[in-house]
Amino acid sequence: MNVQTPKIRTRAGGRSARRTLRSIRDIAMLPGLANTLPLCEVMDGAQVERIDAASMDILEEIGVVFRDEIALEDWRRAGAKVVGERVHLDRGLVHELIATIPAEFTYHARNPANNVSLGGRHAVFVPMTGAPYLRDLDDVRRNPTLDDLAMFHKLSHMSPALHSTAHHIVEPYDHPISQRHLRITYSSMKHSDKMFMGMTTSPKNAEDVMEMCALLFGEEFIDSHPVTTGNCNGNSPLVWDETMLGAMRAFCRRNQPVLCSPFVLGGANTPASVPATVAQLNAEALSALAYTQVVRRGCPAIYGHYLSTVSMKSGAPMAGTPEISLMNFMIGQMARFYGVPWRTSNTLGGAKTFDAQAGYESATTLSAVMHAGANYIWHSAGWNEAGMHCSVAKFVVDAEQCAMAYRMAEGPKWGDFDTALAAVRDVGPGGHYLGHPHTQENFQTAYFMPELFDNNSIEQWQADGAKEITRRALEQARAMLAEYQEPKLDAARNEALLDYIARREREIPAADALNQEY
Amino acid sequence: MNVQTPKIRTRAGGRSARRTLRSIRDIAMLPGLANTLPLCEVMDGAQVERIDAASMDILEEIGVVFRDEIALEDWRRAGAKVVGERVHLDRGLVHELIATIPAEFTYHARNPANNVSLGGRHAVFVPMTGAPYLRDLDDVRRNPTLDDLAMFHKLSHMSPALHSTAHHIVEPYDHPISQRHLRITYSSMKHSDKMFMGMTTSPKNAEDVMEMCALLFGEEFIDSHPVTTGNCNGNSPLVWDETMLGAMRAFCRRNQPVLCSPFVLGGANTPASVPATVAQLNAEALSALAYTQVVRRGCPAIYGHYLSTVSMKSGAPMAGTPEISLMNFMIGQMARFYGVPWRTSNTLGGAKTFDAQAGYESATTLSAVMHAGANYIWHSAGWNEAGMHCSVAKFVVDAEQCAMAYRMAEGPKWGDFDTALAAVRDVGPGGHYLGHPHTQENFQTAYFMPELFDNNSIEQWQADGAKEITRRALEQARAMLAEYQEPKLDAARNEALLDYIARREREIPAADALNQEY
Repeated sequence: MNVQTPKIRTRAGGRSARRTLRSIRDIAMLPGLANTLPLCEVMDGAQVERIDAASMDILEEIGVVFRDEIALEDWRRAGAKVVGERVHLDRGLVHELIATIPAEFTYHARNPANNVSLGGRHAVFVPMTGAPYLRDLDDVRRNPTLDDLAMFHKLSHMSPALHSTAHHIVEPYDHPISQRHLRITYSSMKHSDKMFMGMTTSPKNAEDVMEMCALLFGEEFIDSHPVTTGNCNGNSPLVWDETMLGAMRAFCRRNQPVLCSPFVLGGANTPASVPATVAQLNAEALSALAYTQVVRRGCPAIYGHYLSTVSMKSGAPMAGTPEISLMNFMIGQMARFYGVPWRTSNTLGGAKTFDAQAGYESATTLSAVMHAGANYIWHSAGWNEAGMHCSVAKFVVDAEQCAMAYRMAEGPKWGDFDTALAAVRDVGPGGHYLGHPHTQENFQTAYFMPELFDNNSIEQWQADGAKEITRRALEQARAMLAEYQEPKLDAARNEALLDYIARREREIPAADALNQEY
Repeated sequence: MNVQTPKIRTRAGGRSARRTLRSIRDIAMLPGLANTLPLCEVMDGAQVERIDAASMDILEEIGVVFRDEIALEDWRRAGAKVVGERVHLDRGLVHELIATIPAEFTYHARNPANNVSLGGRHAVFVPMTGAPYLRDLDDVRRNPTLDDLAMFHKLSHMSPALHSTAHHIVEPYDHPISQRHLRITYSSMKHSDKMFMGMTTSPKNAEDVMEMCALLFGEEFIDSHPVTTGNCNGNSPLVWDETMLGAMRAFCRRNQPVLCSPFVLGGANTPASVPATVAQLNAEALSALAYTQVVRRGCPAIYGHYLSTVSMKSGAPMAGTPEISLMNFMIGQMARFYGVPWRTSNTLGGAKTFDAQAGYESATTLSAVMHAGANYIWHSAGWNEAGMHCSVAKFVVDAEQCAMAYRMAEGPKWGDFDTALAAVRDVGPGGHYLGHPHTQENFQTAYFMPELFDNNSIEQWQADGAKEITRRALEQARAMLAEYQEPKLDAARNEALLDYIARREREIPAADALNQEY
């Protein structure tokens, strides 16, 4: 049976509706996602406890290295056994410390309409960060500038399913590295009124971000309201370094959440075993989560990880592979077992261009993290080439993919079930629904219509210029940027931020750091 | 935090292992999949019953049109109320009839090592079929020939995760349409010893397929063993036509399963509502499933569907969209509610080339059908351009994607958990696992290493010729075909098949049918 699908001729009403749909771009942010999907839990209760027990054994018997004198002293005071740089954490102490991490909290944006909940079934999509290259509006791969960063912050602002502008989506190479965090943070704050992330590249940089948050929101406000997120990567296996721990303290002291993210290359810095990798990663995450509570009891904190597996053929990190999906399912179970919100990475992949590999990798990962029930869904737009570049084309496509995943996670809509069934009676065998009033009233919400997928016939597609998705996406990005309107910062706060940046740029030596490799 | 992932230098042992891995292509078929994932069930029990009740109301009150005198007479004898062509099916009668459909059964291949189970948690991947065009080994879009079809049957044979060669993966335009089913069936049987599908393009063609199955397996054998699968599409809303019903009878009489597949274009031939579309589709599928049991009680049959949603902007069918995932989850629940195996479509999409759109669409659908727990996972390789072409490049990539989904559905492997944890102790904080004996022993099975994803650095990728996935996949297809070895048919059976084809080709007029549009 040939299942080719004939193109359906829509009525004039459909064409008119099409024009209307195209003329208004809805950039209103979708509310924070409440994921209604039953989650994919691949471990039974005994297996969850087996991972927990293995992780606790690791923490007690092997211990975790904290390469930081302040942290070691903190741990001694908290009652841990410290031998050299190695901290042995008793399972009772770990459980006691992580118990005070809030299971859910609300992120505050400078536009309160863009506040979002995190934890439990509440989730957010956050763009990729950290790319030393971009593929730009002409798909040219090059080092980024502050203008490029601003462009990505604008695109984040205009993408309904992205809940954050993140921070250094791309590295602005035209500004000294030692001062870059100031301009990055300001760009996030200025170009969007969604929430954003805070740089953790050094303890001092993290302090600067906290000061800027205090200027934007008020010192007292941030002490009781999460307004940003830092990321602290661990060095697997079982090491946390001074830079990350110092940055972590800067955030925790101001009551701002950090992602406690072991950096896992499965098979290279963890065992060649899915459950054992999860056990090690879990021990690492718990050790940092516990430390956040040593710094400040009750401070929000997020169970993190960066996760790829390593090809033993080439040594390269891999994404979109089955074990990454399985580990996401398992890590989600562990985070829920401990009652802590968790972060994952979305749309990862190693493709060098925006080819089909990139599509498979990203969609596979997006699907997995939705079924895993992740809360802080980072790297949700633009990631390519193992994070080495952020692609403008991929950014806008990924953002639409997130909107589709969001729709899926809302589950079926039953509100009009009875009237829709009445349409079945009206239409009867052999009829069609295109002209039925129920269809006319509901088509816009019933079935998601992606802007960036071309589903026309090949003849129509050829008549439209035979554009593959990269070209269509770049056109969409240009169109969005042409329509961008800046959500203006309050003038006094803006001035205070600029004054702060000016002062700090006078204080921080810049000369030898320009264009340094990051 | 820059999360770029450094390339890890593998030891000499790794390079040696790499050579070994590359030198042997493992084409052994993976056993039929036993999906261990907890399924994504988006309806509670009351909602499942609500769909069931709505479908039963449709069957009783609206009725289904069977455009076929024999079927109408069969239904009268079976006790249904028949008004004109419209058959009103009482819910009691439907439940009584579908109760005799086997919940699980075994497909027999001519190589018994390739037998597979279907139903319950047992699933199979089957390539796409029905494409009037292919994108060939040079990525050129053209009408296919019998040689092209043979090529796809060979690739199916050599792809471990594909459990079937299907039938007319592409339409062989170089053979008269009226005789084509004979050559298609023979090609499926000859080029692989996996199971295959049977043409249902007319009742007489279906009889020919049954005769050829009897020649290959023995008349008595097929009467008690499923050896092939037919597909019968319904004309939604609520119509089954004479061609499909006649073909259905040909299969059912010989105890061979058919897919009872309403052909749904959501919003065009079903309501603009996910639950109401599922209710209508469910009624349609049940009416045909019930009819299979009128033809022969106890005959295996499969709950089918072909499912896309329609863009009200363009009238084009869409795939990879959130509602298709949701409907797959819901249809899976309904099939399990009735205890009948079910078929879905995999890797659908409307991209015109093998670009990122194709990757997103395919991976999204593949993921959804795995979490939906589908049994007969059709259109699992090659589909592009809404089924208008089968892409050689996409075929081999999709086949690898199925192998990855297979691995995911197996769930985490706990067998070496304790020895892997011992490695964590051995390595300790700050170490690495690449040289550890556990890694050496387990890396080949611990983390899937896709052949067709390139995860090297951009420098290495450029040195290798800067090949995007389409080019790499076509090289892989050529390499596979160069290594192909035919699993020879028994000489006597082969002769009997060729004699049958020769006789039938004398009997069936061919002249006016050559190159006719299909």
